[in-house]
Amino acid sequence: MKRIAVLTSGGDAPGMNAAVRAVVRKGIYEGMEVYGINYGFAGLVAGDIRKLSISDVGDMIQRGGTFLYSARYPEFATEEGQLKGIEQLKKFGIEGLVVIGGDGSYHGAMALTKHGYPAIGLPGTIDNDIPGTDFCIGFDTATNTVLESIDRIRDTATSHVRTFIIEVMGRDAGDIALWAGVAGGAEQIIIPEKDFDMAEVAKTIQKGRDRGKKHSLIVVAEGVMGGNEFADELAKHGDYHARVTVLGHVQRGGAPSARDRVLASTFGAHAVDLLKSGKGGLCVGIRDNKLVENDIIDVLENGKHKADLSLYQLNQEISY
Amino acid sequence: MKRIAVLTSGGDAPGMNAAVRAVVRKGIYEGMEVYGINYGFAGLVAGDIRKLSISDVGDMIQRGGTFLYSARYPEFATEEGQLKGIEQLKKFGIEGLVVIGGDGSYHGAMALTKHGYPAIGLPGTIDNDIPGTDFCIGFDTATNTVLESIDRIRDTATSHVRTFIIEVMGRDAGDIALWAGVAGGAEQIIIPEKDFDMAEVAKTIQKGRDRGKKHSLIVVAEGVMGGNEFADELAKHGDYHARVTVLGHVQRGGAPSARDRVLASTFGAHAVDLLKSGKGGLCVGIRDNKLVENDIIDVLENGKHKADLSLYQLNQEISY
Amino acid sequence: MKRIAVLTSGGDAPGMNAAVRAVVRKGIYEGMEVYGINYGFAGLVAGDIRKLSISDVGDMIQRGGTFLYSARYPEFATEEGQLKGIEQLKKFGIEGLVVIGGDGSYHGAMALTKHGYPAIGLPGTIDNDIPGTDFCIGFDTATNTVLESIDRIRDTATSHVRTFIIEVMGRDAGDIALWAGVAGGAEQIIIPEKDFDMAEVAKTIQKGRDRGKKHSLIVVAEGVMGGNEFADELAKHGDYHARVTVLGHVQRGGAPSARDRVLASTFGAHAVDLLKSGKGGLCVGIRDNKLVENDIIDVLENGKHKADLSLYQLNQEISY
Amino acid sequence: MKRIAVLTSGGDAPGMNAAVRAVVRKGIYEGMEVYGINYGFAGLVAGDIRKLSISDVGDMIQRGGTFLYSARYPEFATEEGQLKGIEQLKKFGIEGLVVIGGDGSYHGAMALTKHGYPAIGLPGTIDNDIPGTDFCIGFDTATNTVLESIDRIRDTATSHVRTFIIEVMGRDAGDIALWAGVAGGAEQIIIPEKDFDMAEVAKTIQKGRDRGKKHSLIVVAEGVMGGNEFADELAKHGDYHARVTVLGHVQRGGAPSARDRVLASTFGAHAVDLLKSGKGGLCVGIRDNKLVENDIIDVLENGKHKADLSLYQLNQEISY
Repeated sequence: MKRIAVLTSGGDAPGMNAAVRAVVRKGIYEGMEVYGINYGFAGLVAGDIRKLSISDVGDMIQRGGTFLYSARYPEFATEEGQLKGIEQLKKFGIEGLVVIGGDGSYHGAMALTKHGYPAIGLPGTIDNDIPGTDFCIGFDTATNTVLESIDRIRDTATSHVRTFIIEVMGRDAGDIALWAGVAGGAEQIIIPEKDFDMAEVAKTIQKGRDRGKKHSLIVVAEGVMGGNEFADELAKHGDYHARVTVLGHVQRGGAPSARDRVLASTFGAHAVDLLKSGKGGLCVGIRDNKLVENDIIDVLENGKHKADLSLYQLNQEISY
Repeated sequence: MKRIAVLTSGGDAPGMNAAVRAVVRKGIYEGMEVYGINYGFAGLVAGDIRKLSISDVGDMIQRGGTFLYSARYPEFATEEGQLKGIEQLKKFGIEGLVVIGGDGSYHGAMALTKHGYPAIGLPGTIDNDIPGTDFCIGFDTATNTVLESIDRIRDTATSHVRTFIIEVMGRDAGDIALWAGVAGGAEQIIIPEKDFDMAEVAKTIQKGRDRGKKHSLIVVAEGVMGGNEFADELAKHGDYHARVTVLGHVQRGGAPSARDRVLASTFGAHAVDLLKSGKGGLCVGIRDNKLVENDIIDVLENGKHKADLSLYQLNQEISY
Repeated sequence: MKRIAVLTSGGDAPGMNAAVRAVVRKGIYEGMEVYGINYGFAGLVAGDIRKLSISDVGDMIQRGGTFLYSARYPEFATEEGQLKGIEQLKKFGIEGLVVIGGDGSYHGAMALTKHGYPAIGLPGTIDNDIPGTDFCIGFDTATNTVLESIDRIRDTATSHVRTFIIEVMGRDAGDIALWAGVAGGAEQIIIPEKDFDMAEVAKTIQKGRDRGKKHSLIVVAEGVMGGNEFADELAKHGDYHARVTVLGHVQRGGAPSARDRVLASTFGAHAVDLLKSGKGGLCVGIRDNKLVENDIIDVLENGKHKADLSLYQLNQEISY
Repeated sequence: MKRIAVLTSGGDAPGMNAAVRAVVRKGIYEGMEVYGINYGFAGLVAGDIRKLSISDVGDMIQRGGTFLYSARYPEFATEEGQLKGIEQLKKFGIEGLVVIGGDGSYHGAMALTKHGYPAIGLPGTIDNDIPGTDFCIGFDTATNTVLESIDRIRDTATSHVRTFIIEVMGRDAGDIALWAGVAGGAEQIIIPEKDFDMAEVAKTIQKGRDRGKKHSLIVVAEGVMGGNEFADELAKHGDYHARVTVLGHVQRGGAPSARDRVLASTFGAHAVDLLKSGKGGLCVGIRDNKLVENDIIDVLENGKHKADLSLYQLNQEISY
């Protein structure tokens, strides 16, 4: 291949720019031309496409968000949209595409694959819920952002001897809650993967108080329930006056961590290697600390992300 | 005076520990003994009081929250509570008290003053709404914390071409919203001190979009209305799909900024100077970049904090 | 005036971009055209000048460094260079200039003033050593950056019970050392404005150790001597095994603090106001927490920056 | 075992406190008593040992350094020292020991093992150079700290169009340089594991400049040569006016990252599991993203840490 393109899609994640930069630089290093597509699949269909140079991605590795912009575009689920996208790519003479994003992005890449167009998916989502990889671009940064907030809230919780409920992102996956909860020393971590009993939660808070504990921190993944709802439910079991913080969109932004930048750079360069050798229909990941690629159709149809539940057990044994 | 005490009261603010440290170190430097009172006025009345040494405040200058803990204690509004507090102080042989906190703390200090007991108030609240000083301990740190969040949200706002509403603290005072809004380049700042017209807000967002602006950031002080309510109201004027972030308690915590630590240290040492020279019934502040002390009764009865509204005007001229 | 320009010169300082942004946005708000000059006075003489739009300064307020670049250019000290610069400005129809930078930049602005060309100086230097203002753009951020480093070093110093010497910027002015030293709880602050006696320094360290202190932190302004030289001198007075950290250029960079962004925005907008009303030959500052402008010739010929030495005294009384 | 102890030794690393906390909490959870030993092996021999409770490690997970202090103690290399240490442990009725630190700490643990005393080593060093594990406690945090500094320096480098040399830690291992270099977009990474040719370095800088590049960043591991020496050598190949920053001890401190806290917590709890089941003579690690334990004698005698040199190659292909 001599000409490839890259787009970002779905919710933005820190490190997406580092991944785009790697695709562009590695592509040019390999003698290719690299095009950037704005606004994800919407821009693909609309033909919002331009050639990127080395300097277009200069000073980008450290920036949060995505300079290629992102957009939801449900229309790409239709065959019409997909064929229009391929048409645009062909018009620009682009022979392969790198798609960076989450679940929806992978489905777009899979659709192109099924139409015979070479596409490579890179996992970029703070939720860390993409199958085929242990870690997604953006997860490490988001976890550290949440952790900073927990550290801040602990100052106040300790000063006032209070219970705090911190709602974090994670619709289907408890990864952010698990990692930030263990790292933040949260007494309780509530995730979609594990049932919980509110009476038990209340009992544990009470036990801590009886022992002289200065604060209780409860991290709740949004997929279980909202932080305010959680507080209301908890209040039915006792007078805990829990304060609630809903971290929201701050979790998405910020300069990416070292790990996310290295991961994004590795993934981006590998995507180019795959396209260069004519391969498509794959998604890149890291498994057992090794760079891997998987069949994207297989991953989407049979794969399932599993959070590391040993952390859940660990937390119960060290943060009580 | 040979023996003084210090307490923190009300909402915690970053820099309170630096102020306590300064009171302790400066007191000991001046040949005094310094006692710490836990849990604010509640601990005062309960006699939760202990002598502090130089090393008790070692490695404290950088910590958020307050290691003396804080608590609401409405009972201190009664004469009975106040006299009980003075009795405890006398039992320990304590001749003067430094109170660090916000409005409620000042009222406590004023009550002691009215009973003839020497008390000095230090302004510690992220809201920056204490009269008699241009800046309160904690305001600079909180503003920077909010600013970091705005910077993060801007990444996502730009990536998705969206409107974001960011609710920040400030019941009666717009200081955090004003400073963080100007510093964050927010297009709109909504504060208690200024009326606003939602139709105008909507029009300005629209104008920005028409011009190709990638995002709109609106900072709303909680005293005006909640972020979610604001979004609902805005939606009546057009299809802006505004996302909302309620920053909440993260604004209170964190390691204090250089400015807050210097301010807290200066205030704490000055409080000791005042008590040493037998003065009470005062509150310390910074006015026009100079250390000042004011009569605490006068400040509470006649003073009124004024936010710097020139920043409001400035923002309209540079962040449109 | 209908057309003005802006340049940054000398060492870069965090907040310079915020100041340029304010000049551009406020200028356009006032109906002017605003030009940006690359590489300071070098670019001025070379005619490296372009018109800036609102969006050219979008997403700039949070960036460190200066997107207009900076450069040393001693040739601007010659009349020939100055006249060439004015010629370039006239060629572009530019009627007034805003110069952001330190001492050298002010001299350039003064030279233009003496030739009858309207120029306004804005103080931008982390050293905080410009006369006519209490605070310069970049100082607050640099102080916080140094403080973060001190906080990190304290972790190690405490863990190993060691003496650390931290060399910070400040050739002629001890401001960074003073503020970061007080805020960091440094036992000793060595600045150009104050003589010191190495035997006394050693004695104080020893006294702290005898008392059980876990660490000694000494902040040294580079204008006094290098950190390594200081350690060598200290070693002549006893076996202190002091570790040295030379913070160097990290002090210049990073996202500007809230205060620096607000200061830069205020200064930038005010410069436009002054040019708009036909005034030149001035420099903007903040004195006693109020926005001021001073005659630039007077400031450079008679002004002298004074560090706040009350902080020096304070530190001796609370960080021993 | 019913009674175990924990110590930290060698250079401090962020996350050591999180590891100690996990040992204490998990130990108590398992029904054991846990003792803390101050000042590493020096404190062990001196009997500076105390029982730790749950609350002794409260609010510790987020702190840099080690609250158990650390110290170099070459005397522990002697049999006399080792036997004295075991004697102290027995005096307190302590049946097993967890040692957190680097190479020297492992040798201490191995010596105890050879004397038949159960000891478990946990890898804690920012250098990441311990065999038997892919990652050591502290490495992730240190890399992020270096990265923040690189991001700051890039601001200045870009503003002034300059070459910067950044000396980072790493005597024998290039891990910090590699990770921070890739993540920071450094054009050149100089590590002990790879020869380099200064003429080539100079040529690459020149090529970048010819292409219009605004800065060159060179990350040098201290094990290769000092930053200043590197600049001197580079100057022999051309007029590059490279600025040098020696990051030094700031790399050791700071609140640990999420990953380091999770790693430290996992390692600490696992060490207790091993001691509980009567195992000693092991060191814990993470290999291929899985928790492992290795024979400590085998690791020290036959193991060798290998930096991930694929990152070196990657960097040449994307950061030119």
